[in-house]
Amino acid sequence: MAKPKVAVVLSGCGVYDGAEIHEAVLTLLAIVRKGGTYQCFAPNIPQNHVINHLTGQEEHGGSRNVLIEAARIARGDIKDLREFRAADYDAIVFPGGFGAAKNLCTFALDGPECYVNTDVERAIKEVHAAGKPIGALCIAPALIARVLGNITVTIGNDRDAADGIESMGSTHTLTTHGQVVIDPEARVATTPCYMLDATIDQIDVGVQNVVDAVFSMITAPAV
Amino acid sequence: MAKPKVAVVLSGCGVYDGAEIHEAVLTLLAIVRKGGTYQCFAPNIPQNHVINHLTGQEEHGGSRNVLIEAARIARGDIKDLREFRAADYDAIVFPGGFGAAKNLCTFALDGPECYVNTDVERAIKEVHAAGKPIGALCIAPALIARVLGNITVTIGNDRDAADGIESMGSTHTLTTHGQVVIDPEARVATTPCYMLDATIDQIDVGVQNVVDAVFSMITAPAV
Repeated sequence: MAKPKVAVVLSGCGVYDGAEIHEAVLTLLAIVRKGGTYQCFAPNIPQNHVINHLTGQEEHGGSRNVLIEAARIARGDIKDLREFRAADYDAIVFPGGFGAAKNLCTFALDGPECYVNTDVERAIKEVHAAGKPIGALCIAPALIARVLGNITVTIGNDRDAADGIESMGSTHTLTTHGQVVIDPEARVATTPCYMLDATIDQIDVGVQNVVDAVFSMITAPAV
Repeated sequence: MAKPKVAVVLSGCGVYDGAEIHEAVLTLLAIVRKGGTYQCFAPNIPQNHVINHLTGQEEHGGSRNVLIEAARIARGDIKDLREFRAADYDAIVFPGGFGAAKNLCTFALDGPECYVNTDVERAIKEVHAAGKPIGALCIAPALIARVLGNITVTIGNDRDAADGIESMGSTHTLTTHGQVVIDPEARVATTPCYMLDATIDQIDVGVQNVVDAVFSMITAPAV
C-alpha cells in the first residue's frame, strides 16, 4: 500500500494570530511516524491581525499574509489552499491556534454565525463528500462544526466554545488531556490540545492520538 | 532531585531568518520528556533581515525583532537573554536555523571572523565557566566554536561550514542523521539536524539524542 497522504492546513505562524506552532509541528511528526507523508496548505489571505507574542498586544501598522507566515512552519514547502483537491489526499488535518478561529473562519470574533474562508469551506466539504477523514485540534473543531454541522466533536472543557459549537447544531463532548472524540459517521476526529492548560508532552500525546484515529479511518471502510 | 532546568536560546521564528521551528519545538519536547523543564530566551535585537519563507526572497520595508518573533515558538513565555544567569540553569541548548548564524552571530555572513552578539557570548561563556553542558543543533555548533574555540563539534557533512569551524580552532567530526558528537572536556554536545537533507522524524531522533547527551552531562561529574 502507498504511504497515506495527509493535507495539513495551517492558519499562520503563532498561537495568538496563526497556527499554534507546537500543535502544527507535532502533527507533521505524527503523520511521518505513522508512515504517512504530509503536504502543508494555507489560504493566501491577509491575517486578521498581527499579535506581538511577547506582550500579547496587537501590532498596528504592518499586515502579514497567512500563507507566507505558515511557510515558516513548513520550511517553504507549502501550497495555496486554492490548489487543494480532495482526490489527491487520504485525509486532512487542521492544527489549532487562534488562526483557525480568526483567519480560517471568524469563530473567535463572531461566534456561531461566523464566516468561513471559501477555500477552507470547499476543502472541508470536498474531503467530507469523498468519505475521507478529517482531524482537528484545539479550537479547529469549531470550524469543522460550522461547515458540516450536526457532528460530534471536542474542544476540551471551555464552556463558551462548547456552547458555540452546540449552537451550530453539533454535539460537544467534554474531554481532558490526550483524549480524542471520533464521529464515525462524519469521519471526524478531534482533541483539545492547548484549549486546555497543557504541557508540550501532553500536546504530543493528544496529537499522536488524533493522528492515529485519522489513520485508522483512512484504512477502515466508511460506515 | 529537582527537575533539571534547561535554557533554550531561540534566534527568531523560521529557518531562513530565525530559529528552525521543528528543531526548536522538538528540543522543548525532548527536555520535558527527559523530566526537565525549559525556559526560552532570545536576544532583544533586530533580525538581520526578514525572509519570505514562501519565495525564499528578502522582504524589504519591514524589520522584525528576534525576541518578539521567537516568542511565537515559546507561546509568549520567553525572556530577554540579557536576564540569563548560568547559576539558574543546569544546561543551555541552541537550536539551529539561519538565525543562529545571522542573528546570534554572523557566521553565515562573515565566516570564521564573525561577530557574536554580546548577550549570546556572555551566556555561553558563563555556562562553560560553570562547567555546565551546552547543546547545539544544526549550524549552532559554529557559534559555540566561535566563542569557545578548540572544541570538537559536528554540523554534519557541509564542507564550507566544517572548514569554517576548523578555521576557528575547533575540530569538526563528520556525522549523519541522528548522530551526536560529544566533547567531554568542553561539555558540548552537537548534532547536524537540518544541516543534512532530513525528514522531521530524523530531526526528532537527533534532537532526542543531543538532549539525552546534555542530560547525561548534567548528572555526571565534570571530567
